[in-house]
Amino acid sequence: MNTLNKHLETVRINLADRSYDILIGENLLGQSGTFGQLPQAAAALIVTNTTISPLYEATLRQALSGHYKQIHSVHLPDGEAHKDWVTLNLIFDTLLGRACDRKTVLFALGGGVVGDMAGFAAASFMRGVPFVQVPTTLLAQVDSSVGGKTAINHPMGKNMIGAFYQPQRVVCDLGVLKTLPARELSAGLAEIIKYGPIADMAFFDWIDANMDALKACDTQAMAHAVKRSCEIKAFVVGQDERESGLRAILNFGHTFGHAIEAGLGFGQWLHGEAVGCGMVMAANLSADMGLIDLAFVKRLTDLIERAGLPIKGPVLNAQDNAGQYLAHMLHDKKSVAGDIQFVLMDGLGKARVSAAPEAMVRAVIDRCCA
Amino acid sequence: MNTLNKHLETVRINLADRSYDILIGENLLGQSGTFGQLPQAAAALIVTNTTISPLYEATLRQALSGHYKQIHSVHLPDGEAHKDWVTLNLIFDTLLGRACDRKTVLFALGGGVVGDMAGFAAASFMRGVPFVQVPTTLLAQVDSSVGGKTAINHPMGKNMIGAFYQPQRVVCDLGVLKTLPARELSAGLAEIIKYGPIADMAFFDWIDANMDALKACDTQAMAHAVKRSCEIKAFVVGQDERESGLRAILNFGHTFGHAIEAGLGFGQWLHGEAVGCGMVMAANLSADMGLIDLAFVKRLTDLIERAGLPIKGPVLNAQDNAGQYLAHMLHDKKSVAGDIQFVLMDGLGKARVSAAPEAMVRAVIDRCCA
Repeated sequence: MNTLNKHLETVRINLADRSYDILIGENLLGQSGTFGQLPQAAAALIVTNTTISPLYEATLRQALSGHYKQIHSVHLPDGEAHKDWVTLNLIFDTLLGRACDRKTVLFALGGGVVGDMAGFAAASFMRGVPFVQVPTTLLAQVDSSVGGKTAINHPMGKNMIGAFYQPQRVVCDLGVLKTLPARELSAGLAEIIKYGPIADMAFFDWIDANMDALKACDTQAMAHAVKRSCEIKAFVVGQDERESGLRAILNFGHTFGHAIEAGLGFGQWLHGEAVGCGMVMAANLSADMGLIDLAFVKRLTDLIERAGLPIKGPVLNAQDNAGQYLAHMLHDKKSVAGDIQFVLMDGLGKARVSAAPEAMVRAVIDRCCA
Repeated sequence: MNTLNKHLETVRINLADRSYDILIGENLLGQSGTFGQLPQAAAALIVTNTTISPLYEATLRQALSGHYKQIHSVHLPDGEAHKDWVTLNLIFDTLLGRACDRKTVLFALGGGVVGDMAGFAAASFMRGVPFVQVPTTLLAQVDSSVGGKTAINHPMGKNMIGAFYQPQRVVCDLGVLKTLPARELSAGLAEIIKYGPIADMAFFDWIDANMDALKACDTQAMAHAVKRSCEIKAFVVGQDERESGLRAILNFGHTFGHAIEAGLGFGQWLHGEAVGCGMVMAANLSADMGLIDLAFVKRLTDLIERAGLPIKGPVLNAQDNAGQYLAHMLHDKKSVAGDIQFVLMDGLGKARVSAAPEAMVRAVIDRCCA
């Protein structure tokens, strides 16, 4: 409990009365002070899953014990396949079964799936209760837990039902990253890499120079990567909370990535893996449209490969692979009136959202799939 | 289509970038102009139920036909018993099955249940699409369609899962009230009467003097009653959109009313009937606490009776009726840390929220149940 709080960084998300801090450091999860000055309540509910609970729930409970009279918990089944109504209702059943009131604070302890569901439950329970994100994967720390997007999936599409609902705080404990499987660490690195091409080439250079330290989960390197990623996301979300414009650039690589996830069935590739490969495709499309040169496409592709991520897309359909990708992308919720919206690089360190000629998109898919 | 637009009134809800108008008049439903200047979209979805669809859907479709290329509809089963996940999902299934995008505008055509579900669907679909309330009951016109409360029920409690989400417009067509069953008209009158004791005694006097005209659904009288009710609601919601304080006074009669609805099983009494009887109880409690005199309690009780509403609560439990009421009220989502919050009259035309001594509450329940 008294462990020295090394590398503590704070990033502020500025959203008027919905502003909040992201705390970044080692051993935050087990410290009572991490959870001070949150809205007062008699009860807290820890929302976690069956994989994470044995690892960290006891530590979090201990840290929360000085703040709440009652600490309840609910253990969701693990995995994207369970990000649905049935699982969401487990959270409501627990809240109502334990007679929780509209002051109850929810703590999302887990990766992106737990965070998305706990966040949507918090947005909806009694029309809104406070919640805190305690992300336990790198991907959730640098992306999904920050910015207030919450959702569940529908059989006809990912993240189709949800809310923009901001947490009271995000707690990024770098210690938990050390026990992540290598595949999940790589998936998180994809979202870190993303921030370079769309917003900050100096950060891209830094990632390039420090990839080995990041893959080894070096604390100092990871602290910087998480902080800078959160800063860029904070800046973008602060400009456009509800994704009416700028915020869409954070979806670089995601349009192609969603097609991969949907085409293979969600959960086959990790989200970060699909985004990594999707960035290769989006960069190729940007080059074909004359927005960047091929030298950068190669540099980005190499970095994604060094992060341990796939750089070739799967073949979803042997007859008409590009057509299959297009069908999935058309179904993405960013499509408007039948036009697929791509996030394209617009020079180095800059992005924009636009449609693209279908023939060009088909050529990119054909070139980038193995 | 060219019918003269008699008695057209507009009430503005001021909520910064979420502001909108309530239109009140005859024959609004069938006029194209009623639906002009809404957010542009290729498609609209009419959310209605199996009872209302045969009466008004064709008329609304006709009025919308100049504004949207595609007009889809979904027919929900009628009744409070269906205000749940399963029915809500019918809306999402239709939206996704018809390839609707995040610009699609939802039209809630029906009473409070349809409005609550269509509103929550609009709040959640792709994290928020625009919606318009077209309330077809008096209760929905003067209360539930205005102010942005949306929700579904959970087996353990009413309106437990939802969102604060404002419509783009509310269209109160007074013509549809003429075909309402008498029992539903009376239920709506309960919510109109409510605005007097908590906010406007001159309006209370006016209702008292015009009860016969209101029960006969006289257009001029009804136009004034709907307008003044919406104005008061607009003022209160404008001060406190998310019910952190003042807005709770709109729940006058609702704490006892919810106990009646929950105790009998939702749908046995209409919501307005339970609220009418609940106001009698809340007024009695206010008098017992020395906040108003008994003469007003009698005047309010008489008016509620003249509106065609029950003034005696049902016996929910022969052994311990008051205990049964208390158990249901404790479960209400306005309870905080185990304290039941009552909306009490605080002098005439004023209300406040406070706890009350249990013995006094029990005495009121014993006195007010038959």
